[in-house]
Amino acid sequence: MAVSYNALAQSLARSSCFIPKPYSFRDTKLRSRSNVVFACNDNKNIALQAKVDNLLDRIKWDDKGLAVAIAQNVDTGAVLMQGFVNREALSTTISSRKATFFSRSRSTLWTKGETSNNFINILDVYVDCDRDSIIYLGTPDGPTCHTGEETCYYTSVFDQLNNDEASGNKLALTTLYSLESIISKRKEESTVPQEGKPSWTRRLLTDDALLCSKIRYFVGYLYN
Amino acid sequence: MAVSYNALAQSLARSSCFIPKPYSFRDTKLRSRSNVVFACNDNKNIALQAKVDNLLDRIKWDDKGLAVAIAQNVDTGAVLMQGFVNREALSTTISSRKATFFSRSRSTLWTKGETSNNFINILDVYVDCDRDSIIYLGTPDGPTCHTGEETCYYTSVFDQLNNDEASGNKLALTTLYSLESIISKRKEESTVPQEGKPSWTRRLLTDDALLCSKIRYFVGYLYN
Repeated sequence: MAVSYNALAQSLARSSCFIPKPYSFRDTKLRSRSNVVFACNDNKNIALQAKVDNLLDRIKWDDKGLAVAIAQNVDTGAVLMQGFVNREALSTTISSRKATFFSRSRSTLWTKGETSNNFINILDVYVDCDRDSIIYLGTPDGPTCHTGEETCYYTSVFDQLNNDEASGNKLALTTLYSLESIISKRKEESTVPQEGKPSWTRRLLTDDALLCSKIRYFVGYLYN
Repeated sequence: MAVSYNALAQSLARSSCFIPKPYSFRDTKLRSRSNVVFACNDNKNIALQAKVDNLLDRIKWDDKGLAVAIAQNVDTGAVLMQGFVNREALSTTISSRKATFFSRSRSTLWTKGETSNNFINILDVYVDCDRDSIIYLGTPDGPTCHTGEETCYYTSVFDQLNNDEASGNKLALTTLYSLESIISKRKEESTVPQEGKPSWTRRLLTDDALLCSKIRYFVGYLYN
């Protein structure tokens, strides 16, 4: 069901949503104020660098020079991970289009995926109304969490409170993707042989023609 | 298009997703370690309070006793706002089911909606793998941002860099909801009289029968 960014990019481009123009970028020993230099081979790129600097100047960095950065999957809406950024990390993300953070424990920049190859490819960056919180909206190359989970948020507090044993195996999915997950589970179960009359859901999941005919039938109610 | 939590709650309940059991809660002068007391009129609630305390003990609070909390709309996936929580704020959210934060500038708890009535009603709370970042998954009663926007993230960095004038009017929506937003705009535009032959999109948007017939037709490809 996942509607991918790539599949929709062409239609979205018509209204210029989520299609930031790519920037020229090359590694160089020259360092600007933001420590990241765009290829300054023409006035356009110099102007772009000035805009980036201006934008970075306007972020409300905390007393440690940091802001919160939240990486979100643009297709599923899943919050993948949360880290912190300093001026350089945010600037690097904007120019490289790979989600980059500042490690508070190691006091270094790190790009998600630099060891696992599971980069988060940035489509847009959003700043909140207070200018101290940032969203990295992107598509991940693979699982984001070091545990192999799709996201780092797989521990439900309410599951833990209701039943300790059930915790740790449920992602923080939004409604539509929760429903998709449940239907997928039902579909897996439907391959197990069963005695007696099958349930209506099981019949739908094992009979594509029946399923399609029902979808066609109910589409008729969409505008009634 | 928004698939609401409430509409799906019954089906989801069968697999116990997103249906935390409600807790008894009453305001009382008795204060526990977490400063929030569940109605301790039976052993079940005493056990529940112990579980909450245990969970709060395991959060990795920073040197100021805080953790990041991200409020997300369970239906659309939109990140609504981001704040910080201390032990008391998280405990209050768990018991009251209203997203509650700790204001670093005022050094007080605050519940989103306490002045605007736009509460964020909590359906589940997730903790990340490092146990220092939290998602409040919920449904907002109204716009979350004090500016009246649905979310606090309405400033696109790439829009700002591409064209300063275009910034400030685009929410950080995921792909499916971006598409919905674009279709809605096209639909609005379709009410304006136009000369010449209408585009195919305009025809679909102004002719429900044609639109439904096309949906029915393409449903046939779902399983082919």
